[in-house]
Amino acid sequence: MAQHFIVIIAGGKGERFWPQSRAKRPKHLLPIVGETPMLAQTLDRVRSIVPTKNTFVITSAVQEKAVREVCPKLPRENIIAEPVGRDTAPAVGLAAAIVGARDPEGVFAVLPADHVIHDADSYQRDLKAAFAAAEAEPVMATIGIEMTEPATGFGYIQRGEKWKSFERRPVYRVKRFVEKPTLEVAQRYLESGDYVWNAGMFVWSVPVVEAALEKHAPELDAGLQPIREALAKRRPLPAVLKKVYPTLTKISVDYALLEKSDNVVVLPSSFDWDDVGAWPAVARHFPKDTSGNVSRGLALIEDGANNIVYSDGKHLTAVVGADNLIVVHTPDATLVVPKSKAQEIKQLLKRIEALKGGAQWL
Amino acid sequence: MAQHFIVIIAGGKGERFWPQSRAKRPKHLLPIVGETPMLAQTLDRVRSIVPTKNTFVITSAVQEKAVREVCPKLPRENIIAEPVGRDTAPAVGLAAAIVGARDPEGVFAVLPADHVIHDADSYQRDLKAAFAAAEAEPVMATIGIEMTEPATGFGYIQRGEKWKSFERRPVYRVKRFVEKPTLEVAQRYLESGDYVWNAGMFVWSVPVVEAALEKHAPELDAGLQPIREALAKRRPLPAVLKKVYPTLTKISVDYALLEKSDNVVVLPSSFDWDDVGAWPAVARHFPKDTSGNVSRGLALIEDGANNIVYSDGKHLTAVVGADNLIVVHTPDATLVVPKSKAQEIKQLLKRIEALKGGAQWL
Repeated sequence: MAQHFIVIIAGGKGERFWPQSRAKRPKHLLPIVGETPMLAQTLDRVRSIVPTKNTFVITSAVQEKAVREVCPKLPRENIIAEPVGRDTAPAVGLAAAIVGARDPEGVFAVLPADHVIHDADSYQRDLKAAFAAAEAEPVMATIGIEMTEPATGFGYIQRGEKWKSFERRPVYRVKRFVEKPTLEVAQRYLESGDYVWNAGMFVWSVPVVEAALEKHAPELDAGLQPIREALAKRRPLPAVLKKVYPTLTKISVDYALLEKSDNVVVLPSSFDWDDVGAWPAVARHFPKDTSGNVSRGLALIEDGANNIVYSDGKHLTAVVGADNLIVVHTPDATLVVPKSKAQEIKQLLKRIEALKGGAQWL
Repeated sequence: MAQHFIVIIAGGKGERFWPQSRAKRPKHLLPIVGETPMLAQTLDRVRSIVPTKNTFVITSAVQEKAVREVCPKLPRENIIAEPVGRDTAPAVGLAAAIVGARDPEGVFAVLPADHVIHDADSYQRDLKAAFAAAEAEPVMATIGIEMTEPATGFGYIQRGEKWKSFERRPVYRVKRFVEKPTLEVAQRYLESGDYVWNAGMFVWSVPVVEAALEKHAPELDAGLQPIREALAKRRPLPAVLKKVYPTLTKISVDYALLEKSDNVVVLPSSFDWDDVGAWPAVARHFPKDTSGNVSRGLALIEDGANNIVYSDGKHLTAVVGADNLIVVHTPDATLVVPKSKAQEIKQLLKRIEALKGGAQWL
């Protein structure tokens, strides 16, 4: 029987939760929701699925040190740092190479590091079902998130006919992948009942991924060859990654492989899920006061409603007479932004980047 | 000829500019506007009027240390700390006693410590004219501020007929003092041209103040007697103040003396003046960016207008997508409040006071 593996993709630029998140410390390295970093929560959730030695984290060079601190139980060689970011297709190719070196028939899940999932039992059941599907047939099994609202911030997966069941969970053929829709289109998706959110959760075997790379992304496939050879010859990975990675095409796995494949299946999720994409989303996961305010640390809100106030350490952060604000204090930077303008943090970070010495705040 | 003295009343609770201002460090001890504390600016403005040895500062016990640091050139005994606050009438009585001990016929000005006045030349000319008036006749000379708007936050002085001129500045008899008016009433005052703002600037002689105390505030007058005796016998002031001050009536000099006296005159000001009563007022004294924002320190404002952002030290404070906010960062506390709600800081401070260990932030 093929071995099972889990590869957690822990990247991100640390922009949307600035100033708590930074380039070296993005969301998955922070306890944005909960008491431990999101990556640690993700590792906890999958611990019962595969042994630690079969669990990998792919991260970026700038985050490697912090990731190692968050994952002290993982074998050293199971944390792999990409020298440069190349989007998810090269990362999946790298994952297949690493898993393939352990077991050429290995089945592995690719999972994001920074999502909030409270119902771990249902999550584990769905993940086991996806593993069973990917082991039974040469498919790309995705776990799609059941829609709860007409969200415009996610890609969608349209399901086709029922294919099979695994662990009493139905699995459907995938009709198509669609990009982030308009609100109107998302509303139609919600009403149709045929669409689920693409959360970047995939389970597949090494041969299936390698066949797809060969067929749909031959250039990337060839680019990955030196990595496979280095792994086969047990040569240190960092040196070959440093040489090879910058030459790989920057492309998402959705676009490079999934959209082009006809063996994609989808298992609609039975667990709660939140990608907590930006500050306004954290309010969903914390107790609110009677005015709808969420606060963490030494925060005081006087005559204000629906604010989110984060204050680090022994610093007192007070909001008076204001509604719907996000106020985040950290030792070296403070942010004040209305919830409705949270997406403008990106413009702010461009300005900080342009400041002399601005990198210290990124 | 009688000697001239200046007594600066430097009190205040440090509430309205929280968290920059604190109980131990209210507005006059901060460079809220300008590069030096407001008290230092006040001392600089009067330096050409009387010698340093004739300049006094009356402050409170909790502020004494900081006041001494701001006034290193004043003789040690010229800084007097009230052990408890008793409003301005006891402070004026104390000032008369101290000045009287130096020169029983002395003429002295009582001036606030924390107003913004840019035109020092006109200020000095007006002050000299008031000194001349108080030296020529047994009057209580006030300097009233020419109205620029129908302000509802100040007391007013209604002037009567022209009395005399000093230093080519006209001085009027005072018809009456009035409390803070409604906007409608203030509008009428502005149209009438007969009213000036009461800025708490008085010039008078020791005999005039003592006669008024005797006549209009005999209890306070009697209460001050031990202080006069201690000064006459050159006994240390702090001990007697500690004993006497808590027994004095808490009352303003306007109410205790000026409103009841018929020898009050007013000299309408020829200088610019701003009491900078709270955060929204500071915007008047700083250069604005093209969107009307005022910032000090490491402040960044992205897509926002008419904000006031103060950031201490090397901390970066960023405001994104918000208008009309006041954001003040200090090492141990941060405040976010819309300009229109700045008066609610007082409620916040009550809540901080009620916190366990809250005094550290007051």
